[in-house]
Amino acid sequence: MRFFEDLQVGETFTIGRHTFTAADIKAFAKRFDPQLFHVDEVAAAKSHFGALCASGWHTAAVWMRLAVEYRRHQDEAMAERGERVAAIGPALGFRELKWLKPVYVDDVIDYAYEVIEMRESNSRPRFGLMTIRSTGTNQHGELVISFVSTAFVERRDVAP
Amino acid sequence: MRFFEDLQVGETFTIGRHTFTAADIKAFAKRFDPQLFHVDEVAAAKSHFGALCASGWHTAAVWMRLAVEYRRHQDEAMAERGERVAAIGPALGFRELKWLKPVYVDDVIDYAYEVIEMRESNSRPRFGLMTIRSTGTNQHGELVISFVSTAFVERRDVAP
Repeated sequence: MRFFEDLQVGETFTIGRHTFTAADIKAFAKRFDPQLFHVDEVAAAKSHFGALCASGWHTAAVWMRLAVEYRRHQDEAMAERGERVAAIGPALGFRELKWLKPVYVDDVIDYAYEVIEMRESNSRPRFGLMTIRSTGTNQHGELVISFVSTAFVERRDVAP
Repeated sequence: MRFFEDLQVGETFTIGRHTFTAADIKAFAKRFDPQLFHVDEVAAAKSHFGALCASGWHTAAVWMRLAVEYRRHQDEAMAERGERVAAIGPALGFRELKWLKPVYVDDVIDYAYEVIEMRESNSRPRFGLMTIRSTGTNQHGELVISFVSTAFVERRDVAP
């Protein structure tokens, strides 16, 4: 992770891409969201979605995996360049989580986030607070998921 | 699902209970949230969490499964009693999703929701809008997850 001081409002980061196969959609939904339009093509065709589509929690969970992997790769690259890596705390929650379009079989979702606010933390002065809007966009350029989260990011000047 | 007219602000529903085993926590996290404190006991012991704990998305996904099963059982019981079952639309998003305490190995989480607002829908007059606050509470009585969502619920008077 880059340090608080090295991040700017308006910066965007592309964290990864995922293709939602039918097997992938059904495996998640059978375990966590067994509504018919997430587990059965025939029933889904008759539903208001019109076809099998991914659970919203699946779309969100894939974001999490890509975010973790992206951050890990970034940290490794920084360490290889001999740069100091900043710590980041876990997000304590999410706001405005919206599923804007269904994710259908073989949809390809590009995940990204944009820094929308940076501010100091009164409670933890070693850290600053970074607020980001995360998004998933399908192959037609349509937003399918959007949410806002805030996390503690280590400050360079006061790091030990 | 009960009809819009048959639901009251302040009603609470207990939807189910889940015990988060170590195997369960690690299986989800390896697939969707491979941060060390979700997949490795030794690394987790050294983290700020102090022990292996579940991904927040796992805690949320289990809520979804229990909610789907609960609604299905409710609908079946209503149908057996010869009652008409109301339709419910999917939630289009969630607000104020908060992970308030870590969920550690063998924690037992009770999931529930409370109806916090009922209002008519201008865009879809066949439905009303039900807003609920969903929660997960551990065996110590501590809230571990909380979020708010709104869904369309069919109205009895205007159902076809």
